[in-house]
Amino acid sequence: MLLEQINQPEDLKKYAVEELAQLAGEIRQFLIEKLSATGGHLAPNLGVVELTLILHYLFDSPKDKIIFDVGHQAYVHKILTGRKDRFDTLRKYKGLCGFIKRSESEHDVWEAGHSSTSLSAAMGMATARDLKGEDNRVIAVIGDAALTGGMAFEALNHIGHEKKNLIVVLNDNEMSIAPNVGAMHNYLGKIRNDKTYKNAKKELESFLKKIPSIGGKLASAAERLKDSLKYLVVSGVLFEELGFTYLGPVDGHDLVTLNNTFKQASQMKGPVLVHVITTKGKGYTPAEVDSHKWHGITPYKMESGQVVKAVGNPMYTEVFGSTLIELAEQDQRIVAVTPAMPGGSGLMPFAARFPDRMIDVGIAEQHAATLCAALAMEGLKPVYAVYSTFLQRAYDQVVHDICRQDANVVFAIDRAGFVGADGETHQGVYDISFMRHIPNMVMMMPKDENELRHMMKTAFDYNDGPIAIRYPRVNGVGVAYDKELQSIPIGTWEVVREGESYAIAAIGPMIQVALDAAEHLKREGINVRVINARFIKPLDAEMLNQLARERTNMIVLEETAVLGGLGSSILEYYAQHDIYDMRVKLMGVPDYFVEHGSVKEQRQEVGLTAEEVALEIKKMKPRIQTRAK
Amino acid sequence: MLLEQINQPEDLKKYAVEELAQLAGEIRQFLIEKLSATGGHLAPNLGVVELTLILHYLFDSPKDKIIFDVGHQAYVHKILTGRKDRFDTLRKYKGLCGFIKRSESEHDVWEAGHSSTSLSAAMGMATARDLKGEDNRVIAVIGDAALTGGMAFEALNHIGHEKKNLIVVLNDNEMSIAPNVGAMHNYLGKIRNDKTYKNAKKELESFLKKIPSIGGKLASAAERLKDSLKYLVVSGVLFEELGFTYLGPVDGHDLVTLNNTFKQASQMKGPVLVHVITTKGKGYTPAEVDSHKWHGITPYKMESGQVVKAVGNPMYTEVFGSTLIELAEQDQRIVAVTPAMPGGSGLMPFAARFPDRMIDVGIAEQHAATLCAALAMEGLKPVYAVYSTFLQRAYDQVVHDICRQDANVVFAIDRAGFVGADGETHQGVYDISFMRHIPNMVMMMPKDENELRHMMKTAFDYNDGPIAIRYPRVNGVGVAYDKELQSIPIGTWEVVREGESYAIAAIGPMIQVALDAAEHLKREGINVRVINARFIKPLDAEMLNQLARERTNMIVLEETAVLGGLGSSILEYYAQHDIYDMRVKLMGVPDYFVEHGSVKEQRQEVGLTAEEVALEIKKMKPRIQTRAK
Repeated sequence: MLLEQINQPEDLKKYAVEELAQLAGEIRQFLIEKLSATGGHLAPNLGVVELTLILHYLFDSPKDKIIFDVGHQAYVHKILTGRKDRFDTLRKYKGLCGFIKRSESEHDVWEAGHSSTSLSAAMGMATARDLKGEDNRVIAVIGDAALTGGMAFEALNHIGHEKKNLIVVLNDNEMSIAPNVGAMHNYLGKIRNDKTYKNAKKELESFLKKIPSIGGKLASAAERLKDSLKYLVVSGVLFEELGFTYLGPVDGHDLVTLNNTFKQASQMKGPVLVHVITTKGKGYTPAEVDSHKWHGITPYKMESGQVVKAVGNPMYTEVFGSTLIELAEQDQRIVAVTPAMPGGSGLMPFAARFPDRMIDVGIAEQHAATLCAALAMEGLKPVYAVYSTFLQRAYDQVVHDICRQDANVVFAIDRAGFVGADGETHQGVYDISFMRHIPNMVMMMPKDENELRHMMKTAFDYNDGPIAIRYPRVNGVGVAYDKELQSIPIGTWEVVREGESYAIAAIGPMIQVALDAAEHLKREGINVRVINARFIKPLDAEMLNQLARERTNMIVLEETAVLGGLGSSILEYYAQHDIYDMRVKLMGVPDYFVEHGSVKEQRQEVGLTAEEVALEIKKMKPRIQTRAK
Repeated sequence: MLLEQINQPEDLKKYAVEELAQLAGEIRQFLIEKLSATGGHLAPNLGVVELTLILHYLFDSPKDKIIFDVGHQAYVHKILTGRKDRFDTLRKYKGLCGFIKRSESEHDVWEAGHSSTSLSAAMGMATARDLKGEDNRVIAVIGDAALTGGMAFEALNHIGHEKKNLIVVLNDNEMSIAPNVGAMHNYLGKIRNDKTYKNAKKELESFLKKIPSIGGKLASAAERLKDSLKYLVVSGVLFEELGFTYLGPVDGHDLVTLNNTFKQASQMKGPVLVHVITTKGKGYTPAEVDSHKWHGITPYKMESGQVVKAVGNPMYTEVFGSTLIELAEQDQRIVAVTPAMPGGSGLMPFAARFPDRMIDVGIAEQHAATLCAALAMEGLKPVYAVYSTFLQRAYDQVVHDICRQDANVVFAIDRAGFVGADGETHQGVYDISFMRHIPNMVMMMPKDENELRHMMKTAFDYNDGPIAIRYPRVNGVGVAYDKELQSIPIGTWEVVREGESYAIAAIGPMIQVALDAAEHLKREGINVRVINARFIKPLDAEMLNQLARERTNMIVLEETAVLGGLGSSILEYYAQHDIYDMRVKLMGVPDYFVEHGSVKEQRQEVGLTAEEVALEIKKMKPRIQTRAK
């Protein structure tokens, strides 16, 4: 085993390039084995084995900065930088992070999780290097899908202008998480495949060589042409026009070619883009055949590739997808918009049923939001299906284009709350804090999958501006569906358990936690009312006033940032209505970034459990029920 | 006067194209005259007179959708669509909006203010049109600077892929608000000016024509080349590669050429990009000579172009700029980053003094933020100078790249609070709500320009993560500067006026409002304490506890959204510390978008005045000062 000898990048440099092929095979075997137990991003990592080997073979990390966009494709990098023994803990609580993590290794120089940030990072590091008069290399590895995110273009535009020495590795696997879309994708495909390009290049080269043999007027015209035309037929003219030297496309699984190409790149001045063609899932047949499915995978049987199926109620995501079809059958105006997440958002069945009404814009959360505003203003009913964490990218568009123009856009905010193994870069715990202060916004969260269905009906029936439904990355609670879908009156909460003196206002999965706490307290003689605070905005003023009149002690329980959350909103309500003597305790996600683990572990870490809620209730003393002034 | 005859776009169609030249002249005269009294975006509008005329001459608004990016260049459009009589009220309270406003006219189909949204809007409108089976045209007018904003690229990528019929007008004036930067700008410049391009195109064309006369082997090779090479020498190959048909560049002041080009464009299938070269300030010498200064201008003398200088204390913006130079003289690590606002952010003197340490990334707020994170992680001290409203674009990068990595980035958030005449698209009233819930963030606001200087010292001395200073778009209060700059202890407030039973915690310019209210109340025998709550995060826990112990009635006064603002934060503090009997009244910007006018009028509209504060204090009854439990 070569792999046993490799504990740091330095160890690679003892070998000849050709010898690394054996290591590549061993790393693939290692990944396939380890991930069969833990799950993880298998296909992306199998695609970059040779690429990562060559980068560490040729460059001197951490002096040279290797930046991975998103970072879910950095497992090979982790193996080569001393962490191979920790792969049994991958994506587990307190275990190895599934992304780049600076606290894990000095070789992890840039953390990510959201896409398209690596070019800005590289530009920053190159700029700092030059200002400090240092001479290290800076290399950013970015996928073809991430390249279409707007901020990557902003960085390309800046880099191409400033001409800093840095290398962009375009890891082109013709795929993001979902099959890629967009003009940039078409363009890269043309470079890879189009005969016109290849022929034009080849033929012009040979033509230009022959020109000296022609005499007369034509020859001199042709001479002048030569210089001015040459640059037009290199592949990657688009990148060249933006100020990069383009190298490629090169086979991303050919160690020798990769080595030579990166040697060449590292000797060039100014920004270089190396276009590397890789195969997602390379070396493991099930993953090569369906790299979409194997992008991020749960545990599986190594030999068969059979995935260990989790049993459970349907996920909220699936319920969203199937209900959307029902509603869209009734209402032709409904269209779905996704930023490159048709699968993750449960929209594949919708896309199959209504291909014309399914709009996948690629990794482009900002464009998706503003597009929705325009669709709505022309009378359609767009639903923007997006993960809570990725919607952060479109905050300005939500404010400026959707809410300010009061457009009838429905937000389907998936992965709201803790997300588990993806960890701190993906937690959906800020959407309430960054959306509830925007004028015209309505915001809901269902207590179960049946209520999700009614909320979807509510959202599409609502014609008075933007309206959002947020739901968690967990299974539904297993309730039966009501036969008819009905709109829920805007701004109404419901009491799901009666009680007195104490009330817990909770949302989403926290309602079950509240009910469990209430059950526990009942045994001690305390009857706690549990409220489904399903409208985060607007609040249920009537119920809040009633609670005030009854001088109820209240806990607000939410799996979201406590700063700016639902609880904060309730405090504001009482303050704005001169109700000063309420006791409202806030329980939510405290003011730090919660790392990877299971959702259960994450809830335990921050005290969002029935036990903690019961304890807090017991700390509050009951008060006399008199009318508040 | 032709202009008198024009009250709607239909009226244009009676004239021959050539006759519109007279109208163009009259419109220019109209703008120069009217804006001399009101101020406004003169130079951009003088640049698009002919372009706007031809769009309305050729297309049928509002059936055909004409979308203006940003919208500050839509004055000509307003003149042609029945609003010329309202120009005396331009940008005034309840007057004509300086941007597109749907409530003003059916011809205003898309509102903006922030750049780079028009292509997404156009794509949305074209998609809705096709789904509805309609046949109107969609035309987006976007400036060369706005084109570099990431979301514009996201839209280009989507449009080029979907091949919808729509027209993008690239209004290329080689200038945004500041001289343009970036590779895209260089590229457009090459199209406009580079002889290589023009010669290559011309010579290849003539060369290709001559080829049939050559005999032999070479001829057939050349023949095959013809088809494959042709597309390589059209101008705008970058746009062609992204799926657009490129037309241009054309002279944006030549009515006949514009008319012919747009006729041609409107007959083409798929997306067309028309590259129009315009001169900012065209037809008014002072504005042509210094189009940067004349981008947005205060009232001026029409004949001389002499600007009516406002007298007053230095703006916070200027104090920021000059203090930054002082600090940067002492600390080589300080670098300034701006997204295309070097002038507006007061950075021109810094740029002149430290050209290498001044980084203008173009309109690219997201990239700017992530770039700052990387600069900080490499040991520099970046300050991200940005307007509050534009920082909205970088929310995700602030969360994910800066705060999550706890990078030492200083935010200089200008135009915090009401911005006056620019109105609802530019109000800086959300930054507290969208930033204070992010872990690791520190946030300050100074009471005067002297404190701004100390806060800048504080920020650059701070080495424990991100730290933000927000300051308003107003003149400083005219205080003397302290001789030495000193760090302010993090999380400390100060009492600026003593009092008992009542306290007003205010920030920024609201402190003066609070002091005025206190002065007023003193005459009625009420002594109100006024607190400079200069740290929005972290709060001054000691002072808050003291206020609780003294059972003080409290008003929180802030010129920012009341939802999620400082007041909300104080309520959270008390709730989290089981202090339940505080009376805290919130006064801030209510939950709707406040339109254009003067800052004074905007404050009056929402009740942020000394009179209102005094009234609210009087409504609160004093309480016995006992210890809170």
